[in-house]
Amino acid sequence: MYNTMLYITYDGTNYSGFQVQENAPTIQEAVERALSIIYKQPVRITGAGRTDAGVHARGQAANFMAPFFISENKLPCAVNVLLPPDIVITGARKVGGDFHARFDARRKLYSYTIDRAPFPQVFKRFYCWHFPGKLDLDLMEKAALRFEGTHDFKAFQVSGSGVTDTQRTLYRVELKNRPEEQLLTIYFEGSGFLYRMARLITGSLVRAGRGRLNLAEIDNALRGENNAASGPTSPAVGLCLEKIYYDHDL
Amino acid sequence: MYNTMLYITYDGTNYSGFQVQENAPTIQEAVERALSIIYKQPVRITGAGRTDAGVHARGQAANFMAPFFISENKLPCAVNVLLPPDIVITGARKVGGDFHARFDARRKLYSYTIDRAPFPQVFKRFYCWHFPGKLDLDLMEKAALRFEGTHDFKAFQVSGSGVTDTQRTLYRVELKNRPEEQLLTIYFEGSGFLYRMARLITGSLVRAGRGRLNLAEIDNALRGENNAASGPTSPAVGLCLEKIYYDHDL
Repeated sequence: MYNTMLYITYDGTNYSGFQVQENAPTIQEAVERALSIIYKQPVRITGAGRTDAGVHARGQAANFMAPFFISENKLPCAVNVLLPPDIVITGARKVGGDFHARFDARRKLYSYTIDRAPFPQVFKRFYCWHFPGKLDLDLMEKAALRFEGTHDFKAFQVSGSGVTDTQRTLYRVELKNRPEEQLLTIYFEGSGFLYRMARLITGSLVRAGRGRLNLAEIDNALRGENNAASGPTSPAVGLCLEKIYYDHDL
Repeated sequence: MYNTMLYITYDGTNYSGFQVQENAPTIQEAVERALSIIYKQPVRITGAGRTDAGVHARGQAANFMAPFFISENKLPCAVNVLLPPDIVITGARKVGGDFHARFDARRKLYSYTIDRAPFPQVFKRFYCWHFPGKLDLDLMEKAALRFEGTHDFKAFQVSGSGVTDTQRTLYRVELKNRPEEQLLTIYFEGSGFLYRMARLITGSLVRAGRGRLNLAEIDNALRGENNAASGPTSPAVGLCLEKIYYDHDL
């Protein structure tokens, strides 16, 4: 069997998330269906991260085992013609038999984009959270820095995922303001993310930018002493999985 | 009666164009329906330009007469809550009783965007023509300059519109290449546009960029001597009406 890695971009608007579930359209199901046609047998893929309903990806990664090998140049085209237009394979890579897209992922980069225009920008409406209220970007940047480093992010998850080790490292929580486009993007680069962690931190950062959450409260939450500093969960629409980093990327 | 001008942005993907027609959804119909609810009587709007099915607008303009006046600050919000999310009023302006959005328009600016990535960019798919083939941008720029100025654009229209005077002035036909985004945008600023003119010129420019149309052939077409240099019509998806210029904008 040959192990192949795929780079996947998708518009999550019309999907119930990445991971297969019954009676709901998912990215995984769509990609598996296309691959199963190509390989003429059921193919299962392993995604690097499980994005939620409505969340997008510019750089999702996955791998799958298949009975024969299709060249890295040809496979994306072959799969794309069988995929709906909101899912596009942008690359493929032959990998070793023991490569695992999720377990071998070293870092993940997410972006969260806020549309700050007075009225929603029509062409960005599926990819931004429209938040026209005032935001103090200095306060937000100071708050963002508090999240960098290794912390117990227990307060910044939606429970129910069954994860017991809630320590994670965020290498970067960076704001990029693009006033000419009236967009604000927050980049989260981390060793891993708890369930809804990026969206909860975004919610906290927006509260900080509104002057309704101070740095001490964030520090308390990062010591697990106060959940009230966490969130609210910002809408899925603004979140995008930008890139998965493996050993060969670092 | 009060005359009010509206600035309208829309995603044309799901509409059969701007202008009202029977049994098909149009931008005009949606805006008129919203205004008629607000003013509690039928309201008709006059658009500055009639965009085709699938064509977008960042800066469409329109005007309408109404029995009472709603302040420029409040009207957009009031209309937007009654509009679907793919149409957004971004501004309103009180204008003189004889102002006419179409007849008073002095210039129009269109953009046409080409996605040059090897595979379609998922988040741009409704707003770009995906054309991954090679393009010689120098050749395209030289070709674009030939269209600038006052010409008889008879060869650059799809007939059937009944227009008899086919002379127009293009003040600017400018390429903006954004290699980091793998996008190429062509800006067309003109006194007016014949039916499908911007899309036909785009088709000609792409042919020029492929080395399949030379400058002499374009010059011939602009003298009305050779229709073969015109088009093909590029897809509606890449076209966007950016701005309507009135006397107060120049």
